[in-house]
Amino acid sequence: MNQSSPISANKLDTSEWMPGLSIDCVIIGFDLGKLHILVTKMLDSDIRSLPGGFIRKDEHMDQAACRILEERSGLTLPYLQQFYTFGDVDRRKATPVLEQWKTNSHMREMVSWLEQRFISTGYLSLVDMRESKPSPDALSETCSWIPLDELPELLFDHRRIVKKALEHIQNQMNYMPVGKSLLPDKFTMKDYQLLYESILGRKLDRSNFQKKMLRLGFLKRHEKMRGGGSHKAPYLYSFHTDTYNKLLEKGIGYMS
Amino acid sequence: MNQSSPISANKLDTSEWMPGLSIDCVIIGFDLGKLHILVTKMLDSDIRSLPGGFIRKDEHMDQAACRILEERSGLTLPYLQQFYTFGDVDRRKATPVLEQWKTNSHMREMVSWLEQRFISTGYLSLVDMRESKPSPDALSETCSWIPLDELPELLFDHRRIVKKALEHIQNQMNYMPVGKSLLPDKFTMKDYQLLYESILGRKLDRSNFQKKMLRLGFLKRHEKMRGGGSHKAPYLYSFHTDTYNKLLEKGIGYMS
Repeated sequence: MNQSSPISANKLDTSEWMPGLSIDCVIIGFDLGKLHILVTKMLDSDIRSLPGGFIRKDEHMDQAACRILEERSGLTLPYLQQFYTFGDVDRRKATPVLEQWKTNSHMREMVSWLEQRFISTGYLSLVDMRESKPSPDALSETCSWIPLDELPELLFDHRRIVKKALEHIQNQMNYMPVGKSLLPDKFTMKDYQLLYESILGRKLDRSNFQKKMLRLGFLKRHEKMRGGGSHKAPYLYSFHTDTYNKLLEKGIGYMS
Repeated sequence: MNQSSPISANKLDTSEWMPGLSIDCVIIGFDLGKLHILVTKMLDSDIRSLPGGFIRKDEHMDQAACRILEERSGLTLPYLQQFYTFGDVDRRKATPVLEQWKTNSHMREMVSWLEQRFISTGYLSLVDMRESKPSPDALSETCSWIPLDELPELLFDHRRIVKKALEHIQNQMNYMPVGKSLLPDKFTMKDYQLLYESILGRKLDRSNFQKKMLRLGFLKRHEKMRGGGSHKAPYLYSFHTDTYNKLLEKGIGYMS
């Protein structure tokens, strides 16, 4: 149990938080050619959930999101962006685990807090999952990376929240380069294409992809990858930070 | 005073609303080559504000936004999109008018409601302002269109909210056509270019713009505009709805 978490079952003070407002974080990593999502497993239950939390009355909402993200991922100041606020009346269905938690006297206040209607703001972060040290919060047993294509059923509308986060990145891919924070320093063009394909959810033409990316000028070519069969070894690339950042700012859409 | 408004100074029931949550609407129109914003002037004050309101406890946040938008603009079911949620702790500075309102016993409950911290979700709508019938809410005297380049100081962080709404549309312009809901059925290419220029905040090259737009195939050319000097009269255009909608869906970004 993470004692620094704002949700501490032993030391609850729900009066410190903004009522009816929550934050859900879609923390995305990329490994072995697949997108991964950071997911917690709730206490006394098999229910999986996105990392989330609440906003202190004296806290900027972005700071609250950053705090939750840092606590769950173990990363310091990861890049995060707000992408959507979920305001359906019935977005939170009954959760069987709440009945179970009620039997624990320490949890009663938390349960009654959790039973209110919440409007939740979604934040997403693209992180280098190899650098992360996931840790659960006071309402969860574990916190771990799960490949997007193996994602189990999630609490409430959390699957919709993941879908919306991916749509947000897909839209951004139309007018800015993506992926710097997800990849290691050096990577192959194949890795980069797999990253784009897993976000877009479709195959891309290899030579077109390579041409497009190289033409934009934000990739630096290095030596060939070691090992593997001599001439077939692929080149390694890294991001040309200045150019990458300029493109982020200026955009590469059709009106740029 | 609009009696159907949820904010009725005579019949306040703030207990019906989600505490700490508000909605601000950036309602954008286009006329005489300029973007306009719908703005209210607050009761007993010269302070201008974006149309806004609160979310009933049994109401979807999108429905609340739609209700506010319909009430202020007089339009039925205008197209609206959520663009950002503003969560700064100090986004609402002290408002002199609140002190004044306190002297009115009917307003006291409303004033104490308004003094809490609010996190506000921004919705934007692009409308044909010629079809609108603006009307004030219970906290405002007037509601009217003001050209964006003549916008006076606004309440709280409402100017930042307008700026963020424009950035949202600028981003979308990179991967989808924009403007169908802002223009009359028929318009000149010059009107369309002025619309793009006023959203982007910069001049565009006339012949490049025309080429780009025509190549995308969502504009239909009609007869020349009547009046004016014979051969110099410009062609009128309208949107080819099917193609326009397909492009909205498919996108025209560099990864499409």
